Amino acid sequence: MKLSPFAPATFAKLPPIEGVRFATAEAGIRYKNRTDLLLGVFGAGTIAAGVLTQSKTSSAPVLHCRAALASPGAAAGALVVNSGNANAFTGKRGAEAVAITVEAACAATGATRDAVYVASTGVIGEPLNPATFTGLLPGLAKTASPDMFEAAARAIMTTDTYPKLATRTADIGGVPVRLNGYCKGSGMIAPDMATMLCFMFTDAAIAQPILQQLVSRHVTTTFNCMTVDGDTSTSDTCLLFATGAAKARGQSPIGDADDPKLASFSAALQDLMRDLAMQVAKDGEGLSKFVTFNIGGAESFAAARKIGLACANSPILKAAIAGEDPNWGRVVMAVGKSGEAADRDRLCIWFGPHPVAENGERAVSYDEKTVATYMKGREIMIRIDVGVGSGEATVWTCDLTHDYISINADYRS
Amino acid sequence: MKLSPFAPATFAKLPPIEGVRFATAEAGIRYKNRTDLLLGVFGAGTIAAGVLTQSKTSSAPVLHCRAALASPGAAAGALVVNSGNANAFTGKRGAEAVAITVEAACAATGATRDAVYVASTGVIGEPLNPATFTGLLPGLAKTASPDMFEAAARAIMTTDTYPKLATRTADIGGVPVRLNGYCKGSGMIAPDMATMLCFMFTDAAIAQPILQQLVSRHVTTTFNCMTVDGDTSTSDTCLLFATGAAKARGQSPIGDADDPKLASFSAALQDLMRDLAMQVAKDGEGLSKFVTFNIGGAESFAAARKIGLACANSPILKAAIAGEDPNWGRVVMAVGKSGEAADRDRLCIWFGPHPVAENGERAVSYDEKTVATYMKGREIMIRIDVGVGSGEATVWTCDLTHDYISINADYRS
Repeated sequence: MKLSPFAPATFAKLPPIEGVRFATAEAGIRYKNRTDLLLGVFGAGTIAAGVLTQSKTSSAPVLHCRAALASPGAAAGALVVNSGNANAFTGKRGAEAVAITVEAACAATGATRDAVYVASTGVIGEPLNPATFTGLLPGLAKTASPDMFEAAARAIMTTDTYPKLATRTADIGGVPVRLNGYCKGSGMIAPDMATMLCFMFTDAAIAQPILQQLVSRHVTTTFNCMTVDGDTSTSDTCLLFATGAAKARGQSPIGDADDPKLASFSAALQDLMRDLAMQVAKDGEGLSKFVTFNIGGAESFAAARKIGLACANSPILKAAIAGEDPNWGRVVMAVGKSGEAADRDRLCIWFGPHPVAENGERAVSYDEKTVATYMKGREIMIRIDVGVGSGEATVWTCDLTHDYISINADYRS
Repeated sequence: MKLSPFAPATFAKLPPIEGVRFATAEAGIRYKNRTDLLLGVFGAGTIAAGVLTQSKTSSAPVLHCRAALASPGAAAGALVVNSGNANAFTGKRGAEAVAITVEAACAATGATRDAVYVASTGVIGEPLNPATFTGLLPGLAKTASPDMFEAAARAIMTTDTYPKLATRTADIGGVPVRLNGYCKGSGMIAPDMATMLCFMFTDAAIAQPILQQLVSRHVTTTFNCMTVDGDTSTSDTCLLFATGAAKARGQSPIGDADDPKLASFSAALQDLMRDLAMQVAKDGEGLSKFVTFNIGGAESFAAARKIGLACANSPILKAAIAGEDPNWGRVVMAVGKSGEAADRDRLCIWFGPHPVAENGERAVSYDEKTVATYMKGREIMIRIDVGVGSGEATVWTCDLTHDYISINADYRS
């Protein structure tokens, strides 16, 4: 597996979050000589909020998490994640595998059934045998420790070439709180109300409905504005666990969604989610370039996002970017196919700082050589003004390369 | 350019259609040593019907054809098509180029302005200079002849590796009528109410509103059920020209859409359009396999089509097919992301004659080796029953290969 050109040389050490511990193991579910099992153990009073895939063929773990999030209070005691097998499209046996995993996690951690969250990622359609790893859970529960964020992020990787981690701090009424998160994802990435797998943790004390509101709102401008190949997974899961431990340090719990003391936390959460989403796009399967589409002048944010995704999911445009060809005609095509309002004769396009099209024609100052040189960069910014309104959105993706084909023509066999 | 493995060794000679003549020329608009200009000249009384791209960034020729089709009676006297330059996103100059082309065609053929149809295909955003070819039109009008279908189909090719031609006969009240057609398209193919460029010709005498109804109806199950890369062009144009010459052979003109004498013609037209659509998919850029998705058990035809297109536009599934990997988990993913109703626990999937999934799980009889052998074939049929209704659709596409990337990473530069 070729390393993404955006793989960081080193990873920041995430600070511990009171009430959050992890342990990982090599269960050998599919991969050899690497960890593939993660157990998270949460302190009393921890709650969960999250969003899950809108896929009509959701996996068994997704169905379980949806029920757990809907249970009164959405308490969270444990998290079990495996990589190598998605436990998706596995029928009754899939639901049974989840039930057995949840039972084992309850026994190992003391959590109640509804307070156990599970996620699985990897091959679809292969039955998952929970006996390969449930025996490891009691040991993991004993050794779980607060400084295992990077190890946790590594255990959930599939075709990822690096673990994706981020941390932020925020301030709630003068009390500092922490936000840590990690996620995985590289191919089959076009989150629809969530991303592949993303887990976030905070010690803030905020009522569950408000946390849920924040996660749902920020998913729209972060994970849902990111795509690798337009393919929405059966297993997308994005969860935030809040231990409330900051209460003991004087943070008065937030119970009102309009409380101005939420502003810093909300901004930090969005920033954390955006950071993680961009890290996924920067590890898109086979990529050579990270691409940002910045859309302006649309009828609304939703219209701008749809235009951005039409660009970011266009194979013919992404192949041109891989070929370092400033083929802005393909941008025009993608804007047109989005179906959203655009004034063809007011459309303006920039590649980096260079105007390439203005008012519905090639820009007067356009110089093919200058723009071709810009296209040789690792990070490409394409700005589009569609000239009909004031809606804006930013969408992140990567280029479409020979390596994407190679990876996906023999990932499973 | 590597020839499509589906390129025919020889092409059937299309019979002449009374009132239809063609001539082609090497204008050198962009390509060298090949024809790139087509003039069609139609007999008095010819009418046109058609559908055009739904793109919000439609090309100048598309806007002209839309107006011509809306003019009373939609008379047709001439057709001018160039390849190498799409005259799309070329602003005022684009509209001027169309006006100059139309004037020249009127002068050369005697047609009125509204009776001239134009189409351009090739690079987007490059100004088209009509002076490079308008001088050739008078000569072409003089030499135009009825036996030039293959030459016409060749002159409009871009990245196509073979010309796409088809012919049918039908019967209207005992009088035989002919239907000929040709089209072009290979990449940036996901027709939305039309395909790249498709021109069809008949000598039948049928009122224009009825012809229009037939073309619109049959586009839905033919060109709109075909995709190469999910990228809808700015220039999609599908036109049918009817000379009415069969009237002189005793065909009484059809003026009632419910006339049972229309049945044979309607079926032949749909069959012709399906044939041409399949030829486009079989020449998809860089393809190694032709793929048919046959969807059943959906809520409606529209739902089945959407599920089929979600499969046919999935890069990760198409790359697996290129790799001859029977990765049916990716079919499950694509069904799920379509957003259409599907019963995960009744979903059944077949690769060719082999059941791979039934009732929401891997099929009991599934044998990886057998199905892997099937995947080595040139033509792959994937049948999916989503288990909720009786809607059916068939969608055609090709696989996603290294050659698609190579072609599109340097098509323009």
